[in-house]
Amino acid sequence: MNDLTNWLEKHLLQLNLVNEMDYENGFSRLSYTPEEEQAHEAFRTIAKNLGLHIYADEAGNQWATWKVDEHAPTVAVGSHLDTVHGGGGYDGVAGVLTGLGAIKLLQDLNVEPKKNIAVICFASEESARYGVSTIGSKAISGILDKNDLEHVTDADGVTIRDSIEAFGLSWDTIDQAEKSPDDLESFLELHIEQGTQIEDNDAEIGIVRGVACPIRLQVNVKGMANHTGTTPMNKRSDAFVAIAPLIPFVEEQANAMNKEQELPIVATVSTVHLQPNAMNVIPGDVQLGIDIRSVNDQSKRELANRIEAYCQQIERERNVSISIETLVDNDSVFLDQDIQAKLAHVTNDLQLQSIIMDSGAGHDVMNMAQRWPSGLLFIPCREGISHHPKEYASIEDLHKGTHVIAEYLRIETGDDSEDEDWRNRA
Amino acid sequence: MNDLTNWLEKHLLQLNLVNEMDYENGFSRLSYTPEEEQAHEAFRTIAKNLGLHIYADEAGNQWATWKVDEHAPTVAVGSHLDTVHGGGGYDGVAGVLTGLGAIKLLQDLNVEPKKNIAVICFASEESARYGVSTIGSKAISGILDKNDLEHVTDADGVTIRDSIEAFGLSWDTIDQAEKSPDDLESFLELHIEQGTQIEDNDAEIGIVRGVACPIRLQVNVKGMANHTGTTPMNKRSDAFVAIAPLIPFVEEQANAMNKEQELPIVATVSTVHLQPNAMNVIPGDVQLGIDIRSVNDQSKRELANRIEAYCQQIERERNVSISIETLVDNDSVFLDQDIQAKLAHVTNDLQLQSIIMDSGAGHDVMNMAQRWPSGLLFIPCREGISHHPKEYASIEDLHKGTHVIAEYLRIETGDDSEDEDWRNRA
Repeated sequence: MNDLTNWLEKHLLQLNLVNEMDYENGFSRLSYTPEEEQAHEAFRTIAKNLGLHIYADEAGNQWATWKVDEHAPTVAVGSHLDTVHGGGGYDGVAGVLTGLGAIKLLQDLNVEPKKNIAVICFASEESARYGVSTIGSKAISGILDKNDLEHVTDADGVTIRDSIEAFGLSWDTIDQAEKSPDDLESFLELHIEQGTQIEDNDAEIGIVRGVACPIRLQVNVKGMANHTGTTPMNKRSDAFVAIAPLIPFVEEQANAMNKEQELPIVATVSTVHLQPNAMNVIPGDVQLGIDIRSVNDQSKRELANRIEAYCQQIERERNVSISIETLVDNDSVFLDQDIQAKLAHVTNDLQLQSIIMDSGAGHDVMNMAQRWPSGLLFIPCREGISHHPKEYASIEDLHKGTHVIAEYLRIETGDDSEDEDWRNRA
Repeated sequence: MNDLTNWLEKHLLQLNLVNEMDYENGFSRLSYTPEEEQAHEAFRTIAKNLGLHIYADEAGNQWATWKVDEHAPTVAVGSHLDTVHGGGGYDGVAGVLTGLGAIKLLQDLNVEPKKNIAVICFASEESARYGVSTIGSKAISGILDKNDLEHVTDADGVTIRDSIEAFGLSWDTIDQAEKSPDDLESFLELHIEQGTQIEDNDAEIGIVRGVACPIRLQVNVKGMANHTGTTPMNKRSDAFVAIAPLIPFVEEQANAMNKEQELPIVATVSTVHLQPNAMNVIPGDVQLGIDIRSVNDQSKRELANRIEAYCQQIERERNVSISIETLVDNDSVFLDQDIQAKLAHVTNDLQLQSIIMDSGAGHDVMNMAQRWPSGLLFIPCREGISHHPKEYASIEDLHKGTHVIAEYLRIETGDDSEDEDWRNRA
């Protein structure tokens, strides 16, 4: 066991391109940047040392395959290595690391899989740079809409096309990363939970049933900019003061709905843009961004409706006009029940406490599940903190996750030995 | 009269560097930019055509003086030519234009002043670029604190020192623009009202008694950034939802105070900065900027105290910490009573309806009043709209303002003819 612990510790640092994990400003490897590419390079180095076959597809996804039989099916695991700005070193990395670690473990135990095993490192999972998430896994799953992306730019005005070409890819062929249903048999992702349900239930592993996709609204409020010093209180059309009550309203409504239903809903006013945002000018225009999530799709839409009705009330009472754009509204994704059952069996065999749970965050597996039977495993992260320099998962939990993946892969790829024997070998 | 109307129309365009006044995106001549310098160049051209003596001081203020006697005192009028981003073509320009127009009118009427008359075009009045206002008039009045300014930068990170040097000035000598009390006898500024008190009172001219200086607060709220999808509603420390009720609170309190006191107070939450301001992250840090104005200094401070108490209440009820910085807190400035009386006399003589009023906006005259007897005249602007492309003052109102300044200057500079005679000549 010590051997695997050391291996995980060492390669956690290597994938994060650091010598220690404790960084005040966290990790910043935004989508399709040289920093993401450096992490991909580290991935390829580790995979080569495990004797895996390396290949990068047209969308920049990295594949490392333990090829045992070119006529046999391929079982895939994996996650991503890009991060938000100032994020942690576990979101994404945990899934790539434990996928590689599982292969290392199977090899050390002389397991002889009868199917090929691929570890995928998906490109550009985070939406931090472009407001668009999971680009690599969308391409693999054949659901990337290039037309939607064509004119998207980052905060510096760089288009996604230009950054992809600077990354060494061709915009014109990015959708050729698509794999046919026959190319893979199944997919499993491991990710840090980014919440505290596992910890709250005194468990060690989360087996995910459904992934809550967000509804995202942009509320545009139009008032009238004017001088703060010379415009009397009763002659104003202040867009910010008009819309401000919506912010606690969203929280109140989510709390009220949580009292009435079993499946939780979360809702956040997470972005604001004021025009002109100057000390001596009354806010003339405000945009609020609202993120609503639940695997109960009906309750998501009910909350969006309540927000719309509340905005109409504000419009009637205040001298402003309000429009609402729905930026995203996708149904929740439910994962493969057979894989969930197998993961429950494996964790039970390994004497690990698991819970069945839902995911409030989106992951690459959402896209993979559109085409292949797919599963999602969570390991705990301290206090649920993520997308933050304080994000942390213990080596012990990474170790447990690696074991669950390895045992799952062993069964999935047809090793005949009894579970009991294998555990003894481990 | 037609002659003066044409002159004002033509030179309004010239000072704004345009061929027509109607621009959808307004005017952008930020402090110490080439655009401000181009307007200064237009000012010098017009002044030269009136035979005035031109001179630029160490802070970039432009002076145009009708020199009649180097041993006689100098009476000054003026305003500024810089604008906010996307502002109007009258804020500042009106005062420079009518000052020059008054000289043109006095010359046409063959008035022979016994004192020198200076029109000052102050540099860098607006705070839009650096968050610091009235730099030129502070320098003239000897109240410019260079140490405070040294490290101030604009949105692009350009320091005020670098932009001043790029403007052709020397940072090291900028404070030598200071004039001694003997250099001027008095100062009068004309400005658009940027409000609707004149219009609301069916008047034509506002004679200003006091200028309300703002209290400006920055409210810093610290919560905890976390994932919007995975953090349950009851485990959050959302800085934005915690502080949001302060926004309507500020408005409610200002409205309540206006019911209890004669001198009006205005208060605005005019700026917001969210960290990280990303769709999938709960706001961890929020900064709100609040601007409070009244010539009743006590009520300004009372409102600031109520805001502080309310923030303490939020801190007790919510899992956030709040600190408040006072960015600005100056006493109101009261203008010279003799000049107010003279302006009332002049408007009465010219059969113009005037009102005595206070100014909610700061102007260069605030600084000049620290050293010289000073006055402030307002002309109406349409619907009180200012700092906006729709800002508009009519040529008729500019014409009336020019006449008030000319008549005031005529009396101030010792023309002996009877008022009646002069009006007949006009």
